[in-house]
Amino acid sequence: MFTPTPIGFVRSPYSQTSTIPKGLGAKHDAEGDLEILPEFAAGLQDVEGFSHLFVIWVFDKSEGYQLVGPTPVDGIPHGVFATRSPRRPNPLGLTVVEILGRTENRLHVRGLDMLEGTPILDLKPYMSSIAAEKLRRGWLDVAEAKG
Amino acid sequence: MFTPTPIGFVRSPYSQTSTIPKGLGAKHDAEGDLEILPEFAAGLQDVEGFSHLFVIWVFDKSEGYQLVGPTPVDGIPHGVFATRSPRRPNPLGLTVVEILGRTENRLHVRGLDMLEGTPILDLKPYMSSIAAEKLRRGWLDVAEAKG
Repeated sequence: MFTPTPIGFVRSPYSQTSTIPKGLGAKHDAEGDLEILPEFAAGLQDVEGFSHLFVIWVFDKSEGYQLVGPTPVDGIPHGVFATRSPRRPNPLGLTVVEILGRTENRLHVRGLDMLEGTPILDLKPYMSSIAAEKLRRGWLDVAEAKG
Repeated sequence: MFTPTPIGFVRSPYSQTSTIPKGLGAKHDAEGDLEILPEFAAGLQDVEGFSHLFVIWVFDKSEGYQLVGPTPVDGIPHGVFATRSPRRPNPLGLTVVEILGRTENRLHVRGLDMLEGTPILDLKPYMSSIAAEKLRRGWLDVAEAKG
């Protein structure tokens, strides 16, 4: 395996978990920066040509994991791999952000749902989407239909 | 930070890197299994209600990293965070797969681009897509236009 090393940190308007919108219909329009450490900044070359990025990050405030647990969406227990729960065997987060601009080693982005200071492990270009008509979303569609 | 632990392993038809389709127009239709370790299988509850999953995995055959390097697509150097290169500061891979079925702790999926035996760190439900008309793909669009 490998030892995770932050390539940078999220500069987010959210300083507490409770202020991050959660649940059905939660909008993630928050803007902020992905501040990449100077020693990794060369890896950003050509990133700003993409409209969207995947950010892989660490739930560094989360402790332990729960394989089956309720979500804020419907209160019904689901497997952790069918949810975005922070209490995962490997505490990895994944967020799609829209790139608004770049100043040296800072990417200004929209769509943050992480806390201020969250460690970033990787950035990857968002290259293609699954067509909306091909997506099924299991328990989430059920909860939305009820809601 | 945390110590990465495999939650399972990819059962893939690809036994060598050279056999994985790469570059422009590469199709990833390969079918195989995500074999989740019995101690984590409870976390799969309700996963099969989703049509697609994100798989976060480890490039466990990759050594070291290169912040700027050429890709098989266009031979032009790009920053590692604008490519899917395996030689990343944190050797994490991200693949979207379609779920075809589940038998106990094995998810049968389409869309593999990993080697046989690749360690899996996390699975997350694919909940929404960026509309195709909103996506820009930077150097990749340029390469496709030329190609």
